Amino acid sequence: MANKAITSRDVDFGQWYTDVVKAAHLADYSNVKGCTVFEPNGYAIWEKMQQILDKMFKDTGHKNVYMPVLIPESLMKKEGELINGFAPEVAWVTIGGQKELDEKMCIRPTSETLFSDYYASKVKSYRDLPLKYNQWCNVMRWEKETRPFLRSREFLWQEGHTVHSTSAEAEKETRDMLELYKKFFEDYLAIPAITGKKTEKEKFAGAEYTLTIESLMYNGVALQSGTTHYFGQKFSKAYDIKFLNKDNELEYAYQTSWGLTTRMIGALIMVHSDDDGLVLPPNIAPNQVVIIPIGSSDEVNSLSKDICDKLKTENISVYIDDTDRSPGFKFAESEVNGIPVRIEVGARDLDKGIITIARRDTKEKIEVKKDIDIVKFVKDLMNTIQKDMYDKAKARRDRMTYEAHTLKDVEDIMNKEPGFIKAMWCGDEECELKMKEIRGTKSRCILENAKPIDDKCVVCGKEAKDLVVWGIQY
Amino acid sequence: MANKAITSRDVDFGQWYTDVVKAAHLADYSNVKGCTVFEPNGYAIWEKMQQILDKMFKDTGHKNVYMPVLIPESLMKKEGELINGFAPEVAWVTIGGQKELDEKMCIRPTSETLFSDYYASKVKSYRDLPLKYNQWCNVMRWEKETRPFLRSREFLWQEGHTVHSTSAEAEKETRDMLELYKKFFEDYLAIPAITGKKTEKEKFAGAEYTLTIESLMYNGVALQSGTTHYFGQKFSKAYDIKFLNKDNELEYAYQTSWGLTTRMIGALIMVHSDDDGLVLPPNIAPNQVVIIPIGSSDEVNSLSKDICDKLKTENISVYIDDTDRSPGFKFAESEVNGIPVRIEVGARDLDKGIITIARRDTKEKIEVKKDIDIVKFVKDLMNTIQKDMYDKAKARRDRMTYEAHTLKDVEDIMNKEPGFIKAMWCGDEECELKMKEIRGTKSRCILENAKPIDDKCVVCGKEAKDLVVWGIQY
Repeated sequence: MANKAITSRDVDFGQWYTDVVKAAHLADYSNVKGCTVFEPNGYAIWEKMQQILDKMFKDTGHKNVYMPVLIPESLMKKEGELINGFAPEVAWVTIGGQKELDEKMCIRPTSETLFSDYYASKVKSYRDLPLKYNQWCNVMRWEKETRPFLRSREFLWQEGHTVHSTSAEAEKETRDMLELYKKFFEDYLAIPAITGKKTEKEKFAGAEYTLTIESLMYNGVALQSGTTHYFGQKFSKAYDIKFLNKDNELEYAYQTSWGLTTRMIGALIMVHSDDDGLVLPPNIAPNQVVIIPIGSSDEVNSLSKDICDKLKTENISVYIDDTDRSPGFKFAESEVNGIPVRIEVGARDLDKGIITIARRDTKEKIEVKKDIDIVKFVKDLMNTIQKDMYDKAKARRDRMTYEAHTLKDVEDIMNKEPGFIKAMWCGDEECELKMKEIRGTKSRCILENAKPIDDKCVVCGKEAKDLVVWGIQY
Repeated sequence: MANKAITSRDVDFGQWYTDVVKAAHLADYSNVKGCTVFEPNGYAIWEKMQQILDKMFKDTGHKNVYMPVLIPESLMKKEGELINGFAPEVAWVTIGGQKELDEKMCIRPTSETLFSDYYASKVKSYRDLPLKYNQWCNVMRWEKETRPFLRSREFLWQEGHTVHSTSAEAEKETRDMLELYKKFFEDYLAIPAITGKKTEKEKFAGAEYTLTIESLMYNGVALQSGTTHYFGQKFSKAYDIKFLNKDNELEYAYQTSWGLTTRMIGALIMVHSDDDGLVLPPNIAPNQVVIIPIGSSDEVNSLSKDICDKLKTENISVYIDDTDRSPGFKFAESEVNGIPVRIEVGARDLDKGIITIARRDTKEKIEVKKDIDIVKFVKDLMNTIQKDMYDKAKARRDRMTYEAHTLKDVEDIMNKEPGFIKAMWCGDEECELKMKEIRGTKSRCILENAKPIDDKCVVCGKEAKDLVVWGIQY
C-alpha cells in the first residue's frame, strides 16, 4: 500500500519528486525566492556524503581551505570566458556597511578566480607544486526555476582546485578525480555512471576540456552528476601563476578543478526511491537500521537494546524508535524516510522465538531466530541491499540506453520512453543544436576510445568523429 | 632560539600575532578587502573544532540544517531591534541575474530571521517542540578593520537556534549550551573561561538576555569567545511562531540561539603560542604527533613506521616527516606549526638504545628506551601537556585578574598590566560609558550569584547592584 501523501511516480514524476522531498522531510521551499531550506533528514545525507568524499580526497593528498564568498568584479573579469559564462547568473553585492561600494562584488558562482589569485602569490618554484586544495562551501547562481536539490539559486558543494608543474600531471588529476567520483557514485550511491568528455558547447567556461559523469533517472531523464575540468594554462596566464621549472625557466602552471553538489541528493531520490518514499542505499544512509519494539515486555526492551548496542559497536548507525506512536505509524515513517533495514522486535514474535527484519528496498520481510548473530546478519543484508540496488539501477539504465542511427530513431525513442541514446556525431555544433529540437536532447558526453557504431553522423549523415551519449536533461 | 620570522610577543604583540598566523600558514590576507583566506593549517584546526563540537551538539539532541545565505529586507525588518543592531554592518545584494532586484537582500549576519520564519511554518503543537537545530555556515558583517580569525567581514561559525514550549526549558537550553561551550574551551582548547551575563548595553540585539564566555589573552586583552541568547517570545511574536499548548490554547513559543566562530582559532593563538610559533593543545591539534627519522638506516625507518602504525591504531593523528630536508629544518617546522609531540628516531640514538621525544609546549626533550610502550607514553604525555597548558593559562589568567574599588584602581591596572578587573557596578549605563574612557574598558559580564566585593559602584559610588568583570576587548 503506497504512501497516501505521495503521488505515484508513474503517474506524475515531477509531483512524485516534490512529494517525496516533502514527506521524507528532506527540504522545504523558503521565503527566500529560489532558495531551499535543507531540513535535518536532507542535510544528514549531505553530511554523510561529505564525510565519505572528504576522506577520499584526503587519502589522495588533498587539503581543505576556505576562500572568501565575495569576488570583486575586476578579479572575476581577468579570465574572459569565465565571466562571460557566469555573468548572466550571478548575484552582485553593491552596498556594504550602508555605503555604495566602489566596486561591486559577486557571490561566488565558483571559485577559480580566487584560487588562481591566491596561487599566483604562493607558487614560486616547481618544488611548491602540486598544490591540491579543496573547499566545502555554498555557491550562488541566479536560476529562474527552483527544484529542491536539483536547481536552486544557492547550493552546497565541494570544489577542488589544483596547480601542477606539468600538463601530464594536471591531466592525470583531472582523470583521477573523475574516477574517484565514479567510484563514489557506484560504491556508495549505488548509481551506475557513464563517464566521458563534454563537447565544446557543453564544457565549462574557461576549461580546455571538461570530463563528466552522467547518470540516468527513473524517468529516463539524464542528470549531469559531477564534472572535472582541465584548464591547461588558461587561468595561470590570466592570473599570472608562474613557477621556476627544473630548467630554471619561468613557466605558467597547469590547473584543474572539479566539483560535486547537493544535486546528488536529487539523483539518489530519482534513481532509487518509490511510491512509499525515500529508498537509500545502506552505504549512504545516515540511519542504516531502525529497531521498533512492539509491546513493551522486558524481553522486547532488553533484546531491542541488546541489538542496538551490538550494531553500534560495529559502527552501524542504528536507533530504537521507542516513541509513543503505533507500530504501524513507525513502520510507515521508517519507510518514507528510506531507512534500509527495519528490525521489528515484537512480544508475539518472541514467543515463537523469532524477530522480523524488513528490507526497505524490496519490502521483503524476513523472520529470523531471535538469537541469530545479528551483527553478521545485518552486515550481510546491507551488502546485499547495496548490491541489489546498484544492479537494479544498472539493469534499468542499460535497458533505457539505446542506439540511434538516424534523427528518426532519436525522435521515436525520445517520444516513447526516453533514456540515454548512443549515436555517432560529426563534431559540428549545428548538429548538436538540431538534436536539441527533439525534446531538448543534448549531448551528455563523448565516449572516449569507444568503438564506432556507424560511420555517419546521426544528424547530418556526414563523416562521424565521435560516439556520443545523448539525453534529455534536468 | 626563537623563530626569526616571528617578532617577540613581549616586544610587539600585534605584530607577533600576524607573524605567527603567517609563519604557521594558518591564514592569508586576500585581495577581497576585509576577507581572509583560510589556509590548510588554519582550516584543519577549524575542522577539528567542528568535529568535536558537532558531536557534542548531536549528543545533546541537536540536528543540523542549512538555511539560505540571503535574507530579504522585509523579513529582516520584522524584528526591529535585530535590524537596528545589524543594519549598519550588512552587505546588500541588489542585482541578480543582471536585473535590479525588487527587494534587496542581505548576506546573513546571523540567521534568527530565517530560522524564525521557518519555525513559524512548522510549529503547530507542543508535541512538535522542542526543535533544536544548528547550522555550520559563513556569515558576513561589514567590519572596517581586518585581523585574521579575530575580525573579518566574512567568518565561519555555527549557529544553534531552538524553539521550546516553555520559558523554563528555553532558559535551561541557554544555560546548558553555555556550559557546553565552557567545557569545550576548558577540555579541548585548554582555555579557562569566565561565564556570566552581558549587560543591557552589551547584549545581543533582540535578546531578552545574553550569556557569554570570556577569555583572557596573553597580553591581558579580553576576548568574547562565545555567546548564548535567550529570546523569550520576542522573535516568536515578530515572526508569529505559535503553538497549541497542553491546555489547547495558542501560545507564542520560546527561543534561544548560540554561536561559536573561527575567532576561537585567534584565541588559541593568543593564549598558548610563543615566539617559536603556534602551540596547540593535543586535544585540538589536527596533527598530534610528528615522527622525524634522522639518518636512514633500516632500523630508523622500520622503527619510525612501527611507532606510526601503533599510534594510528589508537586514533592518535600522527605522520612521518620523511621529506628530503634537514632534521633541523623539520624540527623548526614542527615547532612553528605547533605539533604537540615530536618523536626523533635517530641512528646514533638507536645505537644507545634510545629515542628522543620533544614537547612543543615546554620545549623539553625526553630520552626514552626505544622499546618503550610508546602508545602509553604518548597518551600520558599528551594528557600531561593538555593539563599543563590549561594550568599555565589559568595561572596567568588568575594572576591578571584584579579587584578594583575606585576608578583610580582601574586606571592604575589598565595602564600597567591590563587584565580582567572585578568591580562592583550600580547598573547604570552612564557608568559603563565612563569606564570606557579608560583605554576602552568595557563590561565583559555580570557574575551571577557572586559575593559582592564592595557595596558601592566603582564609578559613581552609589549603591552597587552587581559584581562585573571588565576588560579591554578585541
